[in-house]
Amino acid sequence: MDTNDLLKQVAFIKEIDKLKYIQRRTRLFQSDRHENDAEHSWHLAMMALVLAGHSDKPVNILKVVQMVLIHDLVEIDAGDTFIYDTSKNHTNTDEELLAAKRIFGLLPEKQAQEFIAIWEEFEAGNTDEAKFARAMDRFEPLLQNTSNNGGTWAEYDVEYHTVYNKKKAIKDGSASIWSYAERLLNESVEKGILRKNQDAED
Amino acid sequence: MDTNDLLKQVAFIKEIDKLKYIQRRTRLFQSDRHENDAEHSWHLAMMALVLAGHSDKPVNILKVVQMVLIHDLVEIDAGDTFIYDTSKNHTNTDEELLAAKRIFGLLPEKQAQEFIAIWEEFEAGNTDEAKFARAMDRFEPLLQNTSNNGGTWAEYDVEYHTVYNKKKAIKDGSASIWSYAERLLNESVEKGILRKNQDAED
Repeated sequence: MDTNDLLKQVAFIKEIDKLKYIQRRTRLFQSDRHENDAEHSWHLAMMALVLAGHSDKPVNILKVVQMVLIHDLVEIDAGDTFIYDTSKNHTNTDEELLAAKRIFGLLPEKQAQEFIAIWEEFEAGNTDEAKFARAMDRFEPLLQNTSNNGGTWAEYDVEYHTVYNKKKAIKDGSASIWSYAERLLNESVEKGILRKNQDAED
Repeated sequence: MDTNDLLKQVAFIKEIDKLKYIQRRTRLFQSDRHENDAEHSWHLAMMALVLAGHSDKPVNILKVVQMVLIHDLVEIDAGDTFIYDTSKNHTNTDEELLAAKRIFGLLPEKQAQEFIAIWEEFEAGNTDEAKFARAMDRFEPLLQNTSNNGGTWAEYDVEYHTVYNKKKAIKDGSASIWSYAERLLNESVEKGILRKNQDAED
């Protein structure tokens, strides 16, 4: 790689510092302090390394780690979208694609294309790596909310079935983690930290 | 992996949340806000992915990423040691080893051993992967300090030769990044944001 490439890479490294200012709705474990996207991405990468053995399919763990490290970078431009916000589309929006092109576009061209492809693979969620990475992204806030007396479920009055439907993505990546996640959800209902509407389809 | 393993892994995942509370001396880019160890570890992992092509030797990039993601976990028990603090030893202290054993020891035994070995490899700094990982660890605060009018160099009145000697570790990982780093150090002296004692050996 030449100096020109390095200068572009340094510009990217400086730009992504902004991820540390993007606040999530979820809070740290047993804490009132909101998590930011950089901390979240680090934690998912650690979870991917530690939990890789639970993936139902053999995965390229480097690819999974790359996915979780970069998956929220588009939020530097597009902002964090709360997963239980019903007014905003959570699929790959035009705004996020523009953000990906601008932010990864700071890198040398070939590298930019590689990162955009990894981000798109994560967003599409079709490959085994993307499924496991997305399972990590659903599992972390579940652990956080159960440690925080319901956390965002309680704070935004999100009902069990809504949570369950979002968390089901864990099942696509790991049967053993999903089994544990289901148990945590049931225990949360029993403890009264997750409201279950008995009229809803069970 | 069985449920018992998963419970141990979840205990580890919860414990390492504490890394988000360990403040570093360095501050975010063009910012007054101190960086925490989780943000720092995420940033180094991103840098390793982006700059891998600059490593003088071919490296197993997954190993490098693992190293930088976990390298500061021992600070959960041992605390952050400022690199220019002359009163405290920066080599692999007994305190840090105890911390590694306690924190990684939350994991299933085989996995704990694997992580401790990776951390020890990083600390020893002898392999190509450790050299490149350590180069990242020296390069990030250099970029931060130059963006912050000298940052910790100015704040703690650290002299050019002291900085230069610490930053030389970059040279062991990458000639091209070192060449750029040297230029940044010289420019910092010219700009007056890094004090150079002319009496010192040049």
